Amino acid sequence: MIDIPLLRDSFASTDSKIVMLVVDGLGGAPHPKTKRSELETANLPNLDRLAQESACGLTIPVLHGVAPGSGPGHLALFGYDPLKHIIGRGALEAVGVEEVDFQEGDVVARGNFCTVNPDGLLLDRRAGRISSELSEPLCYELDKIEVDSIDIRVYPVKDYRFVLRMRGDGLSHNLTEMDPQRIGVPLQNVKALSIEARATAEAANEFVRQARQVLMEEERANMVILRGFSGMPHLPSMARAYKLNPGAIAAYPMYRGLAAIVGMKVLPTGSTFDDEIETLVERYEEHDFFFIHYKPADAAGEDGDFDAKVTALEELDRHIPRLLELEPDVLMVVGDHSTPSIMAAHSWHPVPFLLRSRWTEGEGLETFTERTCAQGSLGTIGAVNVMPLALAHSGKLAKFGA
Amino acid sequence: MIDIPLLRDSFASTDSKIVMLVVDGLGGAPHPKTKRSELETANLPNLDRLAQESACGLTIPVLHGVAPGSGPGHLALFGYDPLKHIIGRGALEAVGVEEVDFQEGDVVARGNFCTVNPDGLLLDRRAGRISSELSEPLCYELDKIEVDSIDIRVYPVKDYRFVLRMRGDGLSHNLTEMDPQRIGVPLQNVKALSIEARATAEAANEFVRQARQVLMEEERANMVILRGFSGMPHLPSMARAYKLNPGAIAAYPMYRGLAAIVGMKVLPTGSTFDDEIETLVERYEEHDFFFIHYKPADAAGEDGDFDAKVTALEELDRHIPRLLELEPDVLMVVGDHSTPSIMAAHSWHPVPFLLRSRWTEGEGLETFTERTCAQGSLGTIGAVNVMPLALAHSGKLAKFGA
Repeated sequence: MIDIPLLRDSFASTDSKIVMLVVDGLGGAPHPKTKRSELETANLPNLDRLAQESACGLTIPVLHGVAPGSGPGHLALFGYDPLKHIIGRGALEAVGVEEVDFQEGDVVARGNFCTVNPDGLLLDRRAGRISSELSEPLCYELDKIEVDSIDIRVYPVKDYRFVLRMRGDGLSHNLTEMDPQRIGVPLQNVKALSIEARATAEAANEFVRQARQVLMEEERANMVILRGFSGMPHLPSMARAYKLNPGAIAAYPMYRGLAAIVGMKVLPTGSTFDDEIETLVERYEEHDFFFIHYKPADAAGEDGDFDAKVTALEELDRHIPRLLELEPDVLMVVGDHSTPSIMAAHSWHPVPFLLRSRWTEGEGLETFTERTCAQGSLGTIGAVNVMPLALAHSGKLAKFGA
Repeated sequence: MIDIPLLRDSFASTDSKIVMLVVDGLGGAPHPKTKRSELETANLPNLDRLAQESACGLTIPVLHGVAPGSGPGHLALFGYDPLKHIIGRGALEAVGVEEVDFQEGDVVARGNFCTVNPDGLLLDRRAGRISSELSEPLCYELDKIEVDSIDIRVYPVKDYRFVLRMRGDGLSHNLTEMDPQRIGVPLQNVKALSIEARATAEAANEFVRQARQVLMEEERANMVILRGFSGMPHLPSMARAYKLNPGAIAAYPMYRGLAAIVGMKVLPTGSTFDDEIETLVERYEEHDFFFIHYKPADAAGEDGDFDAKVTALEELDRHIPRLLELEPDVLMVVGDHSTPSIMAAHSWHPVPFLLRSRWTEGEGLETFTERTCAQGSLGTIGAVNVMPLALAHSGKLAKFGA
């Protein structure tokens, strides 16, 4: 949130519509052989044409050199300083899954099914990415675990991931994580980082002990990792701050969770980007701001699959005309962070972005890439500036001062 | 002000001279037909040649997306964070008019003559922009109004504008404005925003009631609007902070007021840019920093007159050689904000700027436009950075740290 009380009266609710397309992991880096990035390699006629009509630049999600997680990356795009507004991984997952009963005072954690050897050494942090079909029945087994006076629930998320929710008196999320972040070593016990958190740490470790018993005979998902212990996050509402009526369209639970936390209305949608666009079209009259999320570029980048990321970007490009048909007053293509395939991970690289409105006519850029956007009129700016620009271009941010 | 105590000892008084030419509303936006902005359309041989010899960039006056008023726009250029240093509209006007006797404890407001219908509904917020010739006698009539124990003065400014000054014990400027910002509705009463301000609100409303009686028979200027109630602003002096002896040359009162508030010596001048240049030449030996203000570009932009803005820029261009004849050590061409004709308003768009000194050799830019300056070596930076750059290029800002 641009937390500047002085600006508060400058925000105005209007009929104009903003569409923010977040391409997860949008930015990349040159392939060592071709010296061309994924965006430079892909055939993107629609994105390129957009760039020719837009104001362009690069965004720094958090700080130069800092590779953000999905939470900070998105928060910055929504206008929140990601160094001031922290959301735990557990809360992100919990809020994103409709079934999770998550209240004030609860402690939640993100759970992974994983594979350990008979000595308890970690072999696979994601249990071979088992499917939901396999993991869901396991979640229901884990859900039966009872730990003393604490009400414990386990909810499936997707594939190898689940949410653990603890409810009881005097719980604290001030806990260490189990994930050693590498294989061949034992999982870590959950430890309390403050005295108040001791009982919660004990309960979490007792849950893990019992979970190991339940899963002992499984081939791949024979153990669990808990991380991102969190309480209920409290962020100012972007709806109130910007006088917006924002709707969020995202197939993945975590992004729905993020949107809910910042005060967007989360619109039910299907599991593909096609479904998301369908939802956007159907609900277009109901909101003045839409966050729509495209995941495949990041997934391919994280897998280190350069060609798959190129394909994911080309697939995205084919959907752009459907967005344009809606004639939004402001259309932005942004990324929460870069995910260069050659790094197979989120990175700190500035992320290309473009903003198209009636006030933009292009600035001589012919394509939408990391290198061309560096020449854009918007320069290389903090991602927190994206929302004010969108609001200005849509007539929702008035003059400041006499 | 760059409020960094650590830098204080780095500023040095020298003989070198800085000229900051502020082109009000300098930046524009492409015309929908030609796709060329005002700067791109105008024939500007002198500004273009300057750009070829300068360091260039774009400035953000306040924040991305924020369109500033003249106050914040200029304060940023003088090195003050416009979000930390706020100057009320009334004070801006009052300080700019030499005749106004404005002291600590006074409350001032900007006044507009306006036109209302017999039911008191607002018809014209500026009374048809009546001339000073018509408005001055009315100001002298209003100046006779007496309100209880409060000393009230009314001073003409220009055309339909005047300054109201109230003096008395326990006054407060914590008041709402009368301006409904649209026509066809009644004017608003002045309301106190705190208990201490109640008596001041009553006095202001009593003044307005009597003013209406005085003006009742006027055809156009039959009512007044008061806004921007302010006390005496207190800003650190840029003269002291930067060890400068700054002189200000501006035909318009508001800009003279701004300059006085930040500690510049306001030099008497005429009403045209020719007069301003004349003053600069005459007083050139007396100061080491000059702020010289060019208004017509903004006026044309605000009127939505693309061609007039082009002409205003070309008119400015013809004066550039006279500035160069003075051989200032640093010559800057900057803008307080953009005023694209297609928007007929101040905007948030980054503003072109150039800085020419013995240390600049140009950077391959052939013209001085929004698009070329985006390619400049200075990048897109906050306008508060302009002063330190000027001081550095003139040898007035020394090395920081060992």
